[in-house]
Amino acid sequence: MSRRFRAPVVLPCDPACSVLRDAVVDVADDGRITYCGPRAAAPDSAAPVTELTGILLPGLVNAHAHSPMTLLRGMGGDLPLVRWLNEIIWPLEANLRAEDVRAGMVLGSLEMLRHGVTTSAEMYFHAEEMADAVLSTGARAVLGGPIIDLPNVDWRAMIDAAARWIDADGLRFGPGERIELSFAAHSAYMLPPEALRLTGEAARERGALVQIHVAEAADEDQRQRAEHGSVPRLLDKMGLLDGRVLAAHAVHLSDEDIALFAARGVGVAHCPGSNAKLASGFARLTDLRAAKVPVGLGTDGPASNDDLDLWEEVQLSALLARLSTKDSTAVRAVDALLMATRGGAEALGRDDIGALEPGRWADFVHIDTDDFAFAAGLDVSDEQLLANLVWASGSRRVRDVWVAGEKVIADGEPVRVERAKAQEAAREAAARLRG
Amino acid sequence: MSRRFRAPVVLPCDPACSVLRDAVVDVADDGRITYCGPRAAAPDSAAPVTELTGILLPGLVNAHAHSPMTLLRGMGGDLPLVRWLNEIIWPLEANLRAEDVRAGMVLGSLEMLRHGVTTSAEMYFHAEEMADAVLSTGARAVLGGPIIDLPNVDWRAMIDAAARWIDADGLRFGPGERIELSFAAHSAYMLPPEALRLTGEAARERGALVQIHVAEAADEDQRQRAEHGSVPRLLDKMGLLDGRVLAAHAVHLSDEDIALFAARGVGVAHCPGSNAKLASGFARLTDLRAAKVPVGLGTDGPASNDDLDLWEEVQLSALLARLSTKDSTAVRAVDALLMATRGGAEALGRDDIGALEPGRWADFVHIDTDDFAFAAGLDVSDEQLLANLVWASGSRRVRDVWVAGEKVIADGEPVRVERAKAQEAAREAAARLRG
Repeated sequence: MSRRFRAPVVLPCDPACSVLRDAVVDVADDGRITYCGPRAAAPDSAAPVTELTGILLPGLVNAHAHSPMTLLRGMGGDLPLVRWLNEIIWPLEANLRAEDVRAGMVLGSLEMLRHGVTTSAEMYFHAEEMADAVLSTGARAVLGGPIIDLPNVDWRAMIDAAARWIDADGLRFGPGERIELSFAAHSAYMLPPEALRLTGEAARERGALVQIHVAEAADEDQRQRAEHGSVPRLLDKMGLLDGRVLAAHAVHLSDEDIALFAARGVGVAHCPGSNAKLASGFARLTDLRAAKVPVGLGTDGPASNDDLDLWEEVQLSALLARLSTKDSTAVRAVDALLMATRGGAEALGRDDIGALEPGRWADFVHIDTDDFAFAAGLDVSDEQLLANLVWASGSRRVRDVWVAGEKVIADGEPVRVERAKAQEAAREAAARLRG
Repeated sequence: MSRRFRAPVVLPCDPACSVLRDAVVDVADDGRITYCGPRAAAPDSAAPVTELTGILLPGLVNAHAHSPMTLLRGMGGDLPLVRWLNEIIWPLEANLRAEDVRAGMVLGSLEMLRHGVTTSAEMYFHAEEMADAVLSTGARAVLGGPIIDLPNVDWRAMIDAAARWIDADGLRFGPGERIELSFAAHSAYMLPPEALRLTGEAARERGALVQIHVAEAADEDQRQRAEHGSVPRLLDKMGLLDGRVLAAHAVHLSDEDIALFAARGVGVAHCPGSNAKLASGFARLTDLRAAKVPVGLGTDGPASNDDLDLWEEVQLSALLARLSTKDSTAVRAVDALLMATRGGAEALGRDDIGALEPGRWADFVHIDTDDFAFAAGLDVSDEQLLANLVWASGSRRVRDVWVAGEKVIADGEPVRVERAKAQEAAREAAARLRG
């Protein structure tokens, strides 16, 4: 049934980041938006109206996550990246069962929805269980099982499995096309060049996205750089950049790497929190943006960041860009907000999420403005209102969340899944893993 | 009436940051702690017991704030420091009335309590109204009206006024000694050297703290550095460092400045969020800590940060220290937590707050652990529990807060003051200021 949502403030997250006052969003039966704009200019409608009191904006897009790692949250958090992986994470992950991944993903999915994040790009083991978990909470995800070269793993079989799944179920499926399948190549340092080539080929044939970690830590990919000039150049040589690509982290890039990404339309998932916590560095955000590389924001896995609250990345991306350039105008509040919404969609190569526009999915978030953050009221300048939202409110007062027009968070609590049960299942799985 | 508080986890914030399981805190009639330790080792007591379900820890200490600036939150947030002050803040502040400051301070005080911050070091106009505001919410503050050299202001009169107030009411007063008076010298760049000398003298005579902004932005104090070697050296030459001093920001310090601060026992209020947002730089946190300079954390004013949630500074201090040193062990979760509690007290020269120890005030916070952040449960290693608190929970689930044994936040809402009324008063004052 079609519906109308009315709010005193609507942020469609168009490129100018307009602030609409007394506006409505119309949603059709199929969960897509048919109108977003001022109420005074809205088409006649007999649809039932949901009256909201705060700010309505698109659900945020988490452009890089390993959400089932909620199970490992807080473990080994004071170690550098490579030791943290080798000594803590990989040994624990070797014992992961499908049902653990499910429990961790349900929890992570609920946590993201609770923070107003409606879509996440996921890379983790047991991708089928992940899809089930996401479908159970009502969130949206782009996911793929990691293609990785490990002693007990056959990367060729993993490419084939990803391809077969897409051939069987389609690139997107589920109610409101909630699941998109992708190829999740771990990284150049965990795969031989041939695997990169074959992954790119399989993805291109199917129009699928390739997710891949790129140049995260300075020391991790020195061998690739010494051999191939840089990770981006290696990926390009293997033909991987000819299709849809989402490069996660992309911290250590040269001017030439950035130009290559721009020329090939590669999207970047910028993960400032994870990169800072693991002391990996700060990506060249202002240079990437100046080169028109599509940049979204990612939390990375909750074992390294440690929560799935993308609003923290919104703030951090602006703070760290200002610090690193010594320019307090380098990334404004509104730039950061757009990266987390529209920019994330662009980085994923999607034009159906990340903004409130006719034809896009009705994935949106209602922010309760009865809070200290908005003590000046809503009747302030657009600039001040956006600053209050980005710098002072963030996820604190996410009240209701819809995906494809379906309410999945009501008054801060999940609608479809009981939070207590999800937490208990995750607690049990985490306890078993710790042994 | 004496009482006992029992919780599954108590963090006394002793220097080792112990994690006590099944512990109790005993509070005497006067609001001071008489025991904090394992329940099994607690003295016999007939006091009524308050059973808590989560984590009990000391109220955080915000070592640098201008909290009434809640009224200006979000205004001019994309400008560099000097333009932001000259073009936005100072013109608006010229119109501030005492009742505006009161409304802004009540709101800021409630916001801090809501985030588990029980003490703040405040520097703002109309200090008497600020004291009244703090006493009305039940929070604790160290405050002083700024001593500053402006065309319409007589700095000698401001030093005299601060001294007379202390002579009349004492250094600390109010129920549970909630108010401490201090001398709030704005900065070396807004005061002549003679004012620094006289402020130091007046403060020393009374055992009072001097709060002062030090070397915040690179360009702001170049003249002082050219003339006097550095701001710390100028302060020392004027005798200011011979007493209790709290240096806010302290971003641009040489090795000699740090050694001088260490030798004179100067405390530092580290404000990473404000310094990043205004692109002022990142203080040399690891060097300050290595030199044993007492370091607390500050939000700075909510017009530049933009909220009064010190938990964000806890995370930022660790993230930025790791980034700037390229060492993910540079500042651990536990180091950052101690800076926000015990460290803040030390920076303020106080041994009666910031930790749960016999003799200190019963200022503490109850964190609800029924949250995604603690999905692994409380039955994890001490390290993981602290990581979950610092990195994933923060202020999200501050449930109850006590100051001097009095409950001032219950289930997230202020006990003494109605939040809606405080927000409305602030909204009206802010609207008038914007004109």
